[in-house]
Amino acid sequence: MTNVPFQGVIAYPITPFDPAGQVNLGLFKSLVERLVVSGSHGIAPLGSTGVLPYLRDEEKEALTEATIQQVKGRVPVLAGVSNLTTERTIYHAKFAEKAGATAVMIIPMSYWRLTDDEIVAHYDKVAQALSIPIMAYNNPATGGVDMSPALLKRLLRIPNVTMIKESTGDIQRMHYLRRHLGEDVAFFNGSNPLALAAFAAGARGWCTAAPNLIPQLNLDLYHSFQQGDWKAAQDAYYQQFDLLQFIVQKGLPRAIQAGLELQGLNGGELRAPLAQLRPEEKAQLQSILAACC
Amino acid sequence: MTNVPFQGVIAYPITPFDPAGQVNLGLFKSLVERLVVSGSHGIAPLGSTGVLPYLRDEEKEALTEATIQQVKGRVPVLAGVSNLTTERTIYHAKFAEKAGATAVMIIPMSYWRLTDDEIVAHYDKVAQALSIPIMAYNNPATGGVDMSPALLKRLLRIPNVTMIKESTGDIQRMHYLRRHLGEDVAFFNGSNPLALAAFAAGARGWCTAAPNLIPQLNLDLYHSFQQGDWKAAQDAYYQQFDLLQFIVQKGLPRAIQAGLELQGLNGGELRAPLAQLRPEEKAQLQSILAACC
Amino acid sequence: MTNVPFQGVIAYPITPFDPAGQVNLGLFKSLVERLVVSGSHGIAPLGSTGVLPYLRDEEKEALTEATIQQVKGRVPVLAGVSNLTTERTIYHAKFAEKAGATAVMIIPMSYWRLTDDEIVAHYDKVAQALSIPIMAYNNPATGGVDMSPALLKRLLRIPNVTMIKESTGDIQRMHYLRRHLGEDVAFFNGSNPLALAAFAAGARGWCTAAPNLIPQLNLDLYHSFQQGDWKAAQDAYYQQFDLLQFIVQKGLPRAIQAGLELQGLNGGELRAPLAQLRPEEKAQLQSILAACC
Amino acid sequence: MTNVPFQGVIAYPITPFDPAGQVNLGLFKSLVERLVVSGSHGIAPLGSTGVLPYLRDEEKEALTEATIQQVKGRVPVLAGVSNLTTERTIYHAKFAEKAGATAVMIIPMSYWRLTDDEIVAHYDKVAQALSIPIMAYNNPATGGVDMSPALLKRLLRIPNVTMIKESTGDIQRMHYLRRHLGEDVAFFNGSNPLALAAFAAGARGWCTAAPNLIPQLNLDLYHSFQQGDWKAAQDAYYQQFDLLQFIVQKGLPRAIQAGLELQGLNGGELRAPLAQLRPEEKAQLQSILAACC
Repeated sequence: MTNVPFQGVIAYPITPFDPAGQVNLGLFKSLVERLVVSGSHGIAPLGSTGVLPYLRDEEKEALTEATIQQVKGRVPVLAGVSNLTTERTIYHAKFAEKAGATAVMIIPMSYWRLTDDEIVAHYDKVAQALSIPIMAYNNPATGGVDMSPALLKRLLRIPNVTMIKESTGDIQRMHYLRRHLGEDVAFFNGSNPLALAAFAAGARGWCTAAPNLIPQLNLDLYHSFQQGDWKAAQDAYYQQFDLLQFIVQKGLPRAIQAGLELQGLNGGELRAPLAQLRPEEKAQLQSILAACC
Repeated sequence: MTNVPFQGVIAYPITPFDPAGQVNLGLFKSLVERLVVSGSHGIAPLGSTGVLPYLRDEEKEALTEATIQQVKGRVPVLAGVSNLTTERTIYHAKFAEKAGATAVMIIPMSYWRLTDDEIVAHYDKVAQALSIPIMAYNNPATGGVDMSPALLKRLLRIPNVTMIKESTGDIQRMHYLRRHLGEDVAFFNGSNPLALAAFAAGARGWCTAAPNLIPQLNLDLYHSFQQGDWKAAQDAYYQQFDLLQFIVQKGLPRAIQAGLELQGLNGGELRAPLAQLRPEEKAQLQSILAACC
Repeated sequence: MTNVPFQGVIAYPITPFDPAGQVNLGLFKSLVERLVVSGSHGIAPLGSTGVLPYLRDEEKEALTEATIQQVKGRVPVLAGVSNLTTERTIYHAKFAEKAGATAVMIIPMSYWRLTDDEIVAHYDKVAQALSIPIMAYNNPATGGVDMSPALLKRLLRIPNVTMIKESTGDIQRMHYLRRHLGEDVAFFNGSNPLALAAFAAGARGWCTAAPNLIPQLNLDLYHSFQQGDWKAAQDAYYQQFDLLQFIVQKGLPRAIQAGLELQGLNGGELRAPLAQLRPEEKAQLQSILAACC
Repeated sequence: MTNVPFQGVIAYPITPFDPAGQVNLGLFKSLVERLVVSGSHGIAPLGSTGVLPYLRDEEKEALTEATIQQVKGRVPVLAGVSNLTTERTIYHAKFAEKAGATAVMIIPMSYWRLTDDEIVAHYDKVAQALSIPIMAYNNPATGGVDMSPALLKRLLRIPNVTMIKESTGDIQRMHYLRRHLGEDVAFFNGSNPLALAAFAAGARGWCTAAPNLIPQLNLDLYHSFQQGDWKAAQDAYYQQFDLLQFIVQKGLPRAIQAGLELQGLNGGELRAPLAQLRPEEKAQLQSILAACC
């Protein structure tokens, strides 16, 4: 398994805005710092959690640079560079590489449903423009494309596509990847409610926004598996189960923003049309946080 | 039914690119001209067919202006202005209004699944910034959000949201709209294979890319209904059935681009990752065109 | 179109039970008589509406005989004979033929998902044992199998499989049947909410339980299409729209039983686990009936 | 957790037929014997694997009695007694109890979609007629009803409904059951491909037809979890992964029948419309069996 610089809990920061609707870079850096010092094994800016598709180019660039400056090499950085067009994906991927990202994450964003050949060509062109490795990200619920295991297998033949992040929420996809692509394929779980089942299936890591709120529980789950103590893993999982369900159900940026406020921190503003959770939803989150931590 | 400036066949031009990947404005204007002179009752640039989400801001502006200049008021113009953020949707909607568009079409593009309240607020803010009417567009397959009839009813309470375009492909949605929102609601069909059933259900218009290839057949279907001759409508429908299925199945921009070439016209290039139809697909399209026209 | 003895509105009686849980044959006959005298073009006992799968063999036989005796040849009779096993399907089909049924209707009931080959063999063996024609019935929601248009095409090659009843609720299936199996294929609509669209698509008949409650409206819709007056058809359709939606949503046997009671008639009892509509559902049905008739 | 007589691997025998289409009771008993001596922790006749819905009443009774006679109390017996009507379900449940079954399994078989109230009343009436415990079985793919976790919670309030078998194939259902119904709820996994994830989630047992072919691998998976060795569990799981996928994909009765023949045993005949696997499917099964055992 060469050129796979991630393992364990990879944390996704939100992108906070100021009341005028601009990215709050200072606050962003402090949120990144919290993720690093609380033990996350990697930092992934500009993911779905970071509302990548809602950002302008210059905002994306500033956030990428801010992450790398703040992390200072303490853990690897996985920068989101997905874009609807191949040309803009290459642009952002090269920017991230030059800025010092360890790897880039790419979801084949779709408005028009892409054919398998179009997706392969998309990754291939981006890969040729880069030296750092690529994590191919499958999430039909947000990206609109569902990449079959057969297609993922094709992508893995591109030299620097070395990692797969699976977020369909179907554990059988991960079993299939492990069984048919071999033990060496580095697949990561991107579906929070599948955290337990995915590690049981052999996932190398967990891509998650949860460390913004409950870093220790996330790490406990991972370390229990590492130590072969699946009973402890099961306990850690059920302790955080309600929170994982809640943040997925409400949408990660909205749920994390509310959770930070409930923990006495500054979560910034959301960018419209995304709106804050309703009061009763915040109350529900508060009781979930109180019960699990 | 006030402030509903569209009826009949509303034609969607593709956005052609040159070999260097830039929008080919001259070719675009000639494609728009063909749609007008072949009898379309309205022109809708920057729709899904026009690959709106793959364009940069300045490209969108140039295409909106080019359409209005070319159409010269012969038929009304419906400009697509959808964007992931509310702020950019307002920006483009105001641009279109100022440029002379008759109305704007807005689909609530979603990366994060929006709540009904978020969607209502989104339309409401855009509507407040405009004087021209808005067509609310429901198409979960491309936009990622499925607006329920109950939500559409809420949107219609916003004064200048006066039209609905339904593209779920479920004829029962249109029946429901007609039955529960009243005969006065102006709903338009955006699902090509439902063309016959939608007019039978009472649709006021048909939003379609098909007039790029078969304008007369599209108009025949509409006029037969207008004249109360549903048997002729049925015949016209089945004559174009295979083509309507094909262009939806392959994706409108790719299928129209190929069809124009097969008709001896210039369809321009596609923007990657969208790629041309494969040779066997083009051959299939050629035989469908030969059989129906 | 040979050997297609049905056209128009084919009515499905419910199977009423007495308080002790036994079939009430006398009441059943009076319900059949109402359907005949109110103008239905065919009578179909032992359909889904007639709770075929909940009946014992001797009950099925008694109901088949009772129908044929009561109808006395005034209209054709379409007897349901579906069964999970091929052997029992043949048994009931031969019974129906001998009793005087005009044709039999067969849905490939499935517990284990059947392959296309298994389904073809099933119909083929039954067809070989019969001289009367067979209507193949596709309804994945109740039967558990969804027969593709390609499979239906295979079934139509069996000499006495001459009719298809489509109940998927997807109008595009009917378009496909008409377009790809030819104008001569006799397809019938089994989805009440699709009544308008299906006749527009060219359906030869409508298989429906609605004539138990609103026979005149059902006939009006059909006759308007026959007379080429699609505007009158549209009006007739929207007048009965709410009722058609309601009876499908609540389940036909339960909704028809309640509707008969609301019309001052005896609807008998249901067989458990099927239970009567709740009082608020009956009140809703009453207001729908009051509004449409 | 009172009155829960099952744990571990519960094996489902097929129902073999003779060439004349009759149940082959002698062969059935020998298949049951194999399951007992190879270490299964329970025997479940008349499940989906045992083609319950395709059998006549007297056949069901003979198979229930044959199982109990053959097992002779060595392990507990879970008899399938599901029926479309409440009256027949009670009849068969009482028969099974009198014959000596340890518990009965009931899936709410549906032709007409049942309401939650109808399902609760169904179980309640059956439960009142019995003294032995009931396993409520959720499998929308075969039974046609999907019981929500909230409905399962209602069923568990009926005193002798003490066990749940979940076969939706969605691991998150099991997480939810464990989290919201408490650690004491006895839930069993009925989805073979979820075997690993379900034990990781805390399932008390695995209801499976696989021990007809690979009993030792099934037991290895369970015992590894019992011993806290999740790495060994993972290995055992991936070793049998292809077989579990295959038998589910092809249908359990057909796949097990073929597998027994390939292992040099007598699998009997299937009852039409179920038909034997095609030669290329048998060849595929043979290579899967060769690779895993």
